[in-house]
Amino acid sequence: MEINLPQVLAEVQVQSERYEQALVSNDVAVLDELFWNSPHTLRYGAGENLYSYAAICAFRASRPAVGLARTVLRSVITSYGQDMATVNLEFQRDGSARPGRQSQTWLRTADGWRVVSAHVSNLA
Amino acid sequence: MEINLPQVLAEVQVQSERYEQALVSNDVAVLDELFWNSPHTLRYGAGENLYSYAAICAFRASRPAVGLARTVLRSVITSYGQDMATVNLEFQRDGSARPGRQSQTWLRTADGWRVVSAHVSNLA
Repeated sequence: MEINLPQVLAEVQVQSERYEQALVSNDVAVLDELFWNSPHTLRYGAGENLYSYAAICAFRASRPAVGLARTVLRSVITSYGQDMATVNLEFQRDGSARPGRQSQTWLRTADGWRVVSAHVSNLA
Repeated sequence: MEINLPQVLAEVQVQSERYEQALVSNDVAVLDELFWNSPHTLRYGAGENLYSYAAICAFRASRPAVGLARTVLRSVITSYGQDMATVNLEFQRDGSARPGRQSQTWLRTADGWRVVSAHVSNLA
């Protein structure tokens, strides 16, 4: 298993940046695109545990589009072979007292890179 | 990429259960064994952000061995091909008001299955 192949890292970085931009602008179409369309997909948000792509899309569709701005403080992408990667970052949401953390596991699918598992929380 | 090959799921489940048992009994040797010995390994705990295997081991070594008991409420393991898997679970720590969530990404290394990325938090 080759770790951090430059081409793989570059591909995941592009998609991760698309995700970040979509998140802060509440571009639900892109957020939905970048999650794996599977019943196995899972997202633990700060205040909700979502099981399945359908549950994640329903959450996005109903989420208020305000207060999503944030600054990324630190980001680490690691790739494993050609088809898997993790993206972990610390962020500061505007107006929040505590920094947040976002972890994602990405899979290269036939349709492109997709998030298969995600976890977002605030530092206690 | 074959999802949830039964043999792979079974292997990861065994190691995940070893991890859980080691966690609640503060068996630091097993916890250290099951994390990837790499500077890329990362663990976002409820109250700390740890970058590198060395940082994670230092945290384990200094952690009080009390109050670690917890009950797993729900657990989902998904595998991707032969060499990668995610383990996500909800838990209730004894005496805590809020349920917790634990996300891990596992990699099959030459030494066996190892956690390459982890995130633990309480539901807001």
